[in-house]
Amino acid sequence: MAEGEYEKTPRSSFNRLAKRGKYDYGTIHSIIDMTPVLHVSFNPVSPDDDPFPTILPMLGYAAPGSFPEDEPAPSYDDGPRHIYLHGYVTSRLMKLPSTTNGTNGDSSENPKGVPICIAASQVDGIVLALTPFHNSNNYRSAVVHGWASIVESETERMHAMHLITDNVLSHRWNNSRVPPTKAEMTSTGILRVEIASASAKVRVGGPGDDRHDLKDESVIGNVWTGVVPVYLQYGEPVASDYNRVGKVPGYISGWVKEQNERNKEGALKAMIDPTKAAK
Amino acid sequence: MAEGEYEKTPRSSFNRLAKRGKYDYGTIHSIIDMTPVLHVSFNPVSPDDDPFPTILPMLGYAAPGSFPEDEPAPSYDDGPRHIYLHGYVTSRLMKLPSTTNGTNGDSSENPKGVPICIAASQVDGIVLALTPFHNSNNYRSAVVHGWASIVESETERMHAMHLITDNVLSHRWNNSRVPPTKAEMTSTGILRVEIASASAKVRVGGPGDDRHDLKDESVIGNVWTGVVPVYLQYGEPVASDYNRVGKVPGYISGWVKEQNERNKEGALKAMIDPTKAAK
Repeated sequence: MAEGEYEKTPRSSFNRLAKRGKYDYGTIHSIIDMTPVLHVSFNPVSPDDDPFPTILPMLGYAAPGSFPEDEPAPSYDDGPRHIYLHGYVTSRLMKLPSTTNGTNGDSSENPKGVPICIAASQVDGIVLALTPFHNSNNYRSAVVHGWASIVESETERMHAMHLITDNVLSHRWNNSRVPPTKAEMTSTGILRVEIASASAKVRVGGPGDDRHDLKDESVIGNVWTGVVPVYLQYGEPVASDYNRVGKVPGYISGWVKEQNERNKEGALKAMIDPTKAAK
Repeated sequence: MAEGEYEKTPRSSFNRLAKRGKYDYGTIHSIIDMTPVLHVSFNPVSPDDDPFPTILPMLGYAAPGSFPEDEPAPSYDDGPRHIYLHGYVTSRLMKLPSTTNGTNGDSSENPKGVPICIAASQVDGIVLALTPFHNSNNYRSAVVHGWASIVESETERMHAMHLITDNVLSHRWNNSRVPPTKAEMTSTGILRVEIASASAKVRVGGPGDDRHDLKDESVIGNVWTGVVPVYLQYGEPVASDYNRVGKVPGYISGWVKEQNERNKEGALKAMIDPTKAAK
């Protein structure tokens, strides 16, 4: 385990294209936080031994150990993190920790929490080669395995909601009606996921084709090859029926502009393979 | 089970916000095919009983029973489908069907295949309410549970590759060097997933807030509420180092334009709740 990295385990190792694999904190945490929706997988408790794992789309945030609300967050590189997931207390995943008993074993079976997997993926480009076999995507993808448990402390739940809200749109928490009411706090569930292993996979650059196709005039002369960049864009904010604030506030319009630039730049940058550019 | 729908099962039912739940073929199939990357969850075979499910990002396509390559695909509404997933034969998932034996039970335990879950999610907008508790996303999300098995027939593998390639970019297959070579076919793995249950969840419209906030001048007068639309955009295609086709072909530039319009329109349309607009 190199410094600044999650440990490489059999679970998080790559059999194929291992050179695309990354274990460093910065890459993994930033992919999780820039992805608008996380995919969370778990094995639901089922009375009739349903064999299927399931997936829920959820909001979340890779959070450092702790930092006061009024201090800026540490850098993504600074150390390992845990992940807060936001959901409803009634959802199947939130109910799991308290229902893992009876035929499925008592709760002492998973003293660390419920074993789950979190994936965050972002496509940066469609890579078009001479032959479909060599087509690819430029992408950034993180996969985390960890132990999920319900956050009981109201202070920590509030802290997590603040982080998740501001990760969706910077500074939104302080520009909203806060703090939440007692009823709102009661019906909000937050899971805290202790990371057991984590890895990322990143693909950059243009297509790569085989020599026999590159030398075949009828192929190279007829098939366009290259990359179509892909990126998420935010449009003009549209006010609600009951909005009473005339102008879209600067923290929203500024954030939209910033995200659009960052996302587009990310996709364009992904088209260049730095190892090739250095040659 | 209504006509034109997948059966509602305990696995695919919604406890919460059930009115957002959909089971109709058209909604589910179209979400799967418009999502650039699918998240596939399964329980890996592990010698030491690793308790974690895992997730792989994969390409796939919801395919109708069968149709000749030169005929247009039937409508998404026409009937149930199966899903083709594309991967490498060496990946952990592709190896599963042949490795589910020994301590994890012999292969006869899963005669239908490996139980997996496929999720496709797309964010259409950030919904900003007066209080963080009522913030939401507009989204379209499909979750499918099914039995995955490796496609052995070379004809069917080729058929699936054709469908998946053209789902990434229309008409790309016939504008590439095809058919694949023997070696290319050997190292391409295709999984066929028979759908056991499927559902979708769709959220549209603006924010909804509680009466006490709507009546509070200090809240309603200060917090901007509304929707920031979100959509995937494709940029100007960039040629590879070895591209020899001067101009970007029309089927690519036309497709880019079409996707960009469709995606942006989808996000803008999602801001309007048709049940409210009808009032």
